[in-house]
Amino acid sequence: MAKRRDFLLGAAATAAAAAVLRPSKGKAQTKREEMIALKEGFVGQYQGGVYLLPATDETVQWGWFNNAETPRARIKSGDTIILETMMASQNQVLPGVSIEEITRLRVDNPGRGPHTITGPVFIEGAEPGDVLKVKINRIVPRTYGCNWNLPGELGLGQFPKLFPEPQAKYFYLDMARGKTEFLPGIELPVRPFPGILGVARAESGQYSTVPPGPFGGNMDCREMVEGTTVYLPVFVEGALLWSGDSHAVQGNGEINLTAVESAFNELNLTVEVIKKKPLSWPRIESDTHWMTVGYDRDMNKAIRIMEEETIKFLAEWKGLNSSDARRYMATYGDIRVAEVVNQLKGVYCMLSKTDGPAMAALPMKDTRTDFVTHAVNADAMEAMNQAALTLVNRIKDEKRLTALDAYSLASLALDARIGRMEAGAYHIHCLMPKSTWVS
Amino acid sequence: MAKRRDFLLGAAATAAAAAVLRPSKGKAQTKREEMIALKEGFVGQYQGGVYLLPATDETVQWGWFNNAETPRARIKSGDTIILETMMASQNQVLPGVSIEEITRLRVDNPGRGPHTITGPVFIEGAEPGDVLKVKINRIVPRTYGCNWNLPGELGLGQFPKLFPEPQAKYFYLDMARGKTEFLPGIELPVRPFPGILGVARAESGQYSTVPPGPFGGNMDCREMVEGTTVYLPVFVEGALLWSGDSHAVQGNGEINLTAVESAFNELNLTVEVIKKKPLSWPRIESDTHWMTVGYDRDMNKAIRIMEEETIKFLAEWKGLNSSDARRYMATYGDIRVAEVVNQLKGVYCMLSKTDGPAMAALPMKDTRTDFVTHAVNADAMEAMNQAALTLVNRIKDEKRLTALDAYSLASLALDARIGRMEAGAYHIHCLMPKSTWVS
Repeated sequence: MAKRRDFLLGAAATAAAAAVLRPSKGKAQTKREEMIALKEGFVGQYQGGVYLLPATDETVQWGWFNNAETPRARIKSGDTIILETMMASQNQVLPGVSIEEITRLRVDNPGRGPHTITGPVFIEGAEPGDVLKVKINRIVPRTYGCNWNLPGELGLGQFPKLFPEPQAKYFYLDMARGKTEFLPGIELPVRPFPGILGVARAESGQYSTVPPGPFGGNMDCREMVEGTTVYLPVFVEGALLWSGDSHAVQGNGEINLTAVESAFNELNLTVEVIKKKPLSWPRIESDTHWMTVGYDRDMNKAIRIMEEETIKFLAEWKGLNSSDARRYMATYGDIRVAEVVNQLKGVYCMLSKTDGPAMAALPMKDTRTDFVTHAVNADAMEAMNQAALTLVNRIKDEKRLTALDAYSLASLALDARIGRMEAGAYHIHCLMPKSTWVS
Repeated sequence: MAKRRDFLLGAAATAAAAAVLRPSKGKAQTKREEMIALKEGFVGQYQGGVYLLPATDETVQWGWFNNAETPRARIKSGDTIILETMMASQNQVLPGVSIEEITRLRVDNPGRGPHTITGPVFIEGAEPGDVLKVKINRIVPRTYGCNWNLPGELGLGQFPKLFPEPQAKYFYLDMARGKTEFLPGIELPVRPFPGILGVARAESGQYSTVPPGPFGGNMDCREMVEGTTVYLPVFVEGALLWSGDSHAVQGNGEINLTAVESAFNELNLTVEVIKKKPLSWPRIESDTHWMTVGYDRDMNKAIRIMEEETIKFLAEWKGLNSSDARRYMATYGDIRVAEVVNQLKGVYCMLSKTDGPAMAALPMKDTRTDFVTHAVNADAMEAMNQAALTLVNRIKDEKRLTALDAYSLASLALDARIGRMEAGAYHIHCLMPKSTWVS
């Protein structure tokens, strides 16, 4: 590859010239030079090992993961790539588009997800059994996004029967203030993160982008903001990295099915291959925390997966045996709900990198800073439903919101935590920051 | 309009609902709800009088101004509107696209400009004889842009015969640093501004976006950055505001025909109507300066227009008579070249808002901070050509750049000023900041 790099560091580093120098070897599926260049990994490289992958109809896929997709960029371990992403349904959910149209886009496209993913990016040297370390250097969203509630008869979102009326709400993302206005007097912090960041499955074929899995994908974990690093197991040669479902604001649970669904002008990633490292589920690292995850159709099982992942991680990190790790997790683990609406429900455990006091007991009622609801049930999902719904109804009544707006606001601002895990009794605590109301 | 506003301030302010409440009255040209909503000016309004106008194939035009275009948004004096813009040739000039393809896009579309403009925006109450005051609150460019040189046989750019080889260079715009790398060791500050900001002409019909005029348009004045206010004369009811040709980096003169041609994710404008104010050419106001402009096919005449505009402005601002105004301009005016490649050549005069010392004489040779070339001629264009070309050749030789890169770099970083204006002798001083070379 030395020649290619030397060439591109030179003065006339045009993709066209690159394509001429290294004509496509496979059967030509396109005659467009930029697509040939794309396949060769030359897309918009600029001096210094930074690749640009703009989102175009030819660099995105709507709603499907497929490990047979031709790589749209090809990078080496340690390179930085800047992905652009599109709005949902291949950029059709734009300000002004009605909920009827959004519904039609969903109904007319059965099977596939609403998300649009940019990629895949082929990382040279990545092989099954390796780990992809993806550092999120920077995220710049578009200036707008949308939260919507589909008609109840589609049975999507967490409470379709209770909130059957459709609604789409568009938001201006004021990035100078890092805020968006939900309604006059109600503001939400903008914390952009990729709802989907994932690699190819081992299995061939076409898979909906909706369910997350060991490959990452639609994790909807709102901790994956700028500055975070995500570790993903590699299942195919080149790993094949995608991102999409670009979220600007999301609550834990994402209960009405959507976040503030936006697109990223810049998702700036540095990608490294860690050779021969076994990893069963993604891990997330922030400046302050390590995070383990668990996803399953059964939320109780998702919690068990997360527990097993945490025990494995604590063995590696702290050298703890299984029972010490369980004790550590119970004492220090900050366990939260990622989402409950992607077929598989997701939870994650945050572990502080620095030694500190044990986690305080989670609140059962309002605090100075938060509205709080609490429920306990042998089925974690039932407890979550009850606590979340109580909170939605409380803010509806106490803050005089419409039912749909209360549901929408909870989807964007709920903080859902998992408290004590006694045998057969999951405690869910739903918090809503009082600072959401600014006047 | 009170009802509409009240409604939109309510909880369920969806464009769909708005369209239902106020069905389109004209003949339906589209059945798409969002387009009907668009025509009603309801596009993505959010609470608080902020409008969003995303750039889609239905909200942009490629290369033509036409005052018969249906408004894509409708706002009131004092409203804020956020325009998105596209890359050149309706978003086809993306990283990886070859110069051959860029050339084809130009050759296959004779007559129209390469620019893509978003709009028009109808401003309620604006009438011929009024002035539109457009405050540029914020500009957020895409993360990339392109500077290109078309083949010499097209006769475009300032020196097509001297630099006949085509080239496209793509740039990553590192907005965290506010820089882009031209080549290793050569960095340019990113200062985004709309190359095109303008209103409709009085005359009906289709006009290329290339030539600027009293309506503004393709002014390519690199002072029109975030924080600046542009005053445009109104020629038709509603004014009809457009923007496009979104520049990330541009030198005075724009000599190879292009800037770093990008697109804006956010062009955040507050638009006010000033009633019954005569204005013959646009004016520009920054925190520190007032600016007058002049554009003409003949650069000498462009300078005369700018002088007349400055005299008019000084009469209004300082109450000066014509001869005092000329003296003031000669003493305090900082006169620069906007562009020389848009059929009409443009110049502008910067006048400090605060009293200060007289303008120092412009340098004739290198200073501590700048490479400098100088030429004098009875024809300002000839003087500009000579000074600019000398500078291009100097940096080519002294900095060992290819001819095409030297030409490109001058198009992006040249600082071209007009010095003493003796009878029949225009002095042009071309400066290139030494800080462009960072290592």
